[in-house]
Amino acid sequence: MQHNECDLIIKGSYILTQDENRTLIENGAVAVCGRKIAEAGPDKEIERDWKAESVIDTGKSVIMPGLINAHTHVPMTLMRGVADDLPLLDWLHNYMFPIESGLTRELVELGAMLGCAEIAASGTTAFLDGYMYEDAVGRAVDQSGLKAVLGEGFFKFPSPFFKTAEKAWDTVKKLDDLFHDNPRIRTAVTPHAVFTTDPDQLAESMKLAEKLGLLWQIHAAESVPETKLTLETFGKRPIEILAEYGLLTERTRIHHCVDVTADEIELIRKSRAQISHNPQSNLKLGSGICPVTKFIAAGINTGLGTDGAASNNNLDMFDEMRTAALLQKGFLRDPEAMPAGTVLDMATINGARFLGFEDTGSIKPGFSADIIAVDMDKMHLKPVYNPLSHVVYSAGGQDVALTVCDGNVVYRDGKHMTLDVESISREAEKAVKWALKRLG
Amino acid sequence: MQHNECDLIIKGSYILTQDENRTLIENGAVAVCGRKIAEAGPDKEIERDWKAESVIDTGKSVIMPGLINAHTHVPMTLMRGVADDLPLLDWLHNYMFPIESGLTRELVELGAMLGCAEIAASGTTAFLDGYMYEDAVGRAVDQSGLKAVLGEGFFKFPSPFFKTAEKAWDTVKKLDDLFHDNPRIRTAVTPHAVFTTDPDQLAESMKLAEKLGLLWQIHAAESVPETKLTLETFGKRPIEILAEYGLLTERTRIHHCVDVTADEIELIRKSRAQISHNPQSNLKLGSGICPVTKFIAAGINTGLGTDGAASNNNLDMFDEMRTAALLQKGFLRDPEAMPAGTVLDMATINGARFLGFEDTGSIKPGFSADIIAVDMDKMHLKPVYNPLSHVVYSAGGQDVALTVCDGNVVYRDGKHMTLDVESISREAEKAVKWALKRLG
Repeated sequence: MQHNECDLIIKGSYILTQDENRTLIENGAVAVCGRKIAEAGPDKEIERDWKAESVIDTGKSVIMPGLINAHTHVPMTLMRGVADDLPLLDWLHNYMFPIESGLTRELVELGAMLGCAEIAASGTTAFLDGYMYEDAVGRAVDQSGLKAVLGEGFFKFPSPFFKTAEKAWDTVKKLDDLFHDNPRIRTAVTPHAVFTTDPDQLAESMKLAEKLGLLWQIHAAESVPETKLTLETFGKRPIEILAEYGLLTERTRIHHCVDVTADEIELIRKSRAQISHNPQSNLKLGSGICPVTKFIAAGINTGLGTDGAASNNNLDMFDEMRTAALLQKGFLRDPEAMPAGTVLDMATINGARFLGFEDTGSIKPGFSADIIAVDMDKMHLKPVYNPLSHVVYSAGGQDVALTVCDGNVVYRDGKHMTLDVESISREAEKAVKWALKRLG
Repeated sequence: MQHNECDLIIKGSYILTQDENRTLIENGAVAVCGRKIAEAGPDKEIERDWKAESVIDTGKSVIMPGLINAHTHVPMTLMRGVADDLPLLDWLHNYMFPIESGLTRELVELGAMLGCAEIAASGTTAFLDGYMYEDAVGRAVDQSGLKAVLGEGFFKFPSPFFKTAEKAWDTVKKLDDLFHDNPRIRTAVTPHAVFTTDPDQLAESMKLAEKLGLLWQIHAAESVPETKLTLETFGKRPIEILAEYGLLTERTRIHHCVDVTADEIELIRKSRAQISHNPQSNLKLGSGICPVTKFIAAGINTGLGTDGAASNNNLDMFDEMRTAALLQKGFLRDPEAMPAGTVLDMATINGARFLGFEDTGSIKPGFSADIIAVDMDKMHLKPVYNPLSHVVYSAGGQDVALTVCDGNVVYRDGKHMTLDVESISREAEKAVKWALKRLG
């Protein structure tokens, strides 16, 4: 009997493969060669056929693909809990903007490091970001061992970072160059929103995305007040503006879509643009409840995101999955409205398509070895009838015992392998004093 | 300098006292004498004035009152995740009832033990229960060291447990006798719901509650279908029936109240009856979104509950607080609709009033030593600007490092002091096989 050689075998009680058939493997194992999954199957077969450098037995656990966060602003982790329970404009103008206008590249990197630590520990392996100084975010992502798509945000008004949006084009190109050879990091063109940019600028930025072959992401239709503002300024609703200027394309990623009409959903569907659903942020900011079941019914690919930790207030995708499932059931008064499998799809394979990382989000041969293990040997996860149900309705990010990204262990049993969390914690405490000083 | 003697001092970075002024103490400590809190204040003062048998320094933590779960069915923890994403009647008739009709006193006690383990570990110290074989639930509660109010449920139709509701009266009396001298355990008269009992029986049961001086709890107005059923049977809505039969009293505790009118809220307010809010269960079962902000505005005392783990699927009151706050903000499109402080009140002092344990829910002299510590030294809880905000919006039950109930440490740093969790886990695994067999 000949063995194939591999680098790592991960064993556990169940594997939620998220493959085409949503195969559940009991007493399963995954063989990893380099950055890729070589095979997944019953542990006896894997151990019969493969010989590994190292074997991780995760015990009573559910092995599953690393979760994918479709929308976040990781540097804002530094502002977690600085201001809550406030009207949006008060929150923005009196808390977020005064802090953000003083941010340095170093503080952005620190916030991103803190965010990456939480992301890795809670079982997310890839995220789509948008913020400022994204080169610094990229450095944090690179060090963390995670995957990300980085978006340098721009506006029509001068920001602390760009005097004009056109300056952003150079930054995007540089960012794309900087991480061009890094298989874990990509770039996205990132106008902030329809009401904070102008349509010609948006059209220009889409040309840049096409030229560089990048995704193009934007916040749109997040709330009724946004729609009102956009109507006042342009005489049209946000999604109508995107359609009119040719900005609904296959490379378009729209965050939120809370306040959308049936016609707008149809425009998005036809264009093959994609949507990220961010239920906790939409709730916390008072934006409303997103008609996400309609997107799914229309066949629009929909990812799931936490948004920034300043409006959530965590980056835990398990928590987000549970809220996504519960909210639609209650709002639509239909316990079948959003089953566990649907939200897990959003947080894995559909999220992978959303980020354009097409080889993650499932555990199957040839796919990237982005794998997590959820420890089921905890009182709040007993007994186990259905691992899928437990992952969505009972587990939290803190039940994650192992996070492997791109074939490397980045987090295991409470220990970070790539990030110096003690130093990050110390610096974050200092940043609190800095932020409070800015707020007066 | 003379010291007073006490049994235990608990120290931490912050104390959320939940006293009348919602005092926040930085670098605080609590002195515990026997079952009671002797004093709470800055750690330097407490350590100057008190000499303790034992000192627990919880480090970078938030010390706060043990949370209070206003509505649950702890034995159902054994059915966690057995069936999800189903219409209510399918869930009840094809999953819950076939399992429940075969339950023994031993299985109920096992489910309660499992539930108590999760409750203690996630920082809840008292809960209001309703189920069958509540004497067995009481044994689990007694062993766990937690506090509970026990309700033996009854219906108008013969149940596996009572041939007639009148048989239940004896059981309630026996239950009340059984735990009469236990300061941690009380009894509540517990008709299941208006549509599963009859009004005369309800009126009789209220007399029993008055005679024994007990709380009287009922599920009511949980969903639109329930209202429809009640209208068809009695020609009136659930809360109207309660009012008509004199069942809205100071001892009345109503669970849910999702489908209530303004007039019904006014009836409840006038009667000084109290309501439990159970947002995750209401969402998961598709019952709808409860107008809880109207109860609070009306001055109705409102507790917060998880309901059973078969419709949640956890007993984590931190998770429930976050959902309670986020849901109302989003549903009402108002980020100020339900501030962190309001939900913390529901889960502490208002919950204490709901259970009739008037000396818990706050950290202040003379109150029961029901105290927890939330470990803030975790990446997903950094940095800390506002401990209250973190407890509601960022923390989870798994961040609880210490649970003290009635002056005794019941859980600390992942270890249960009162329950044999290995044996409970083994038995729960066996129960899964039994349950699946009953489901065929």
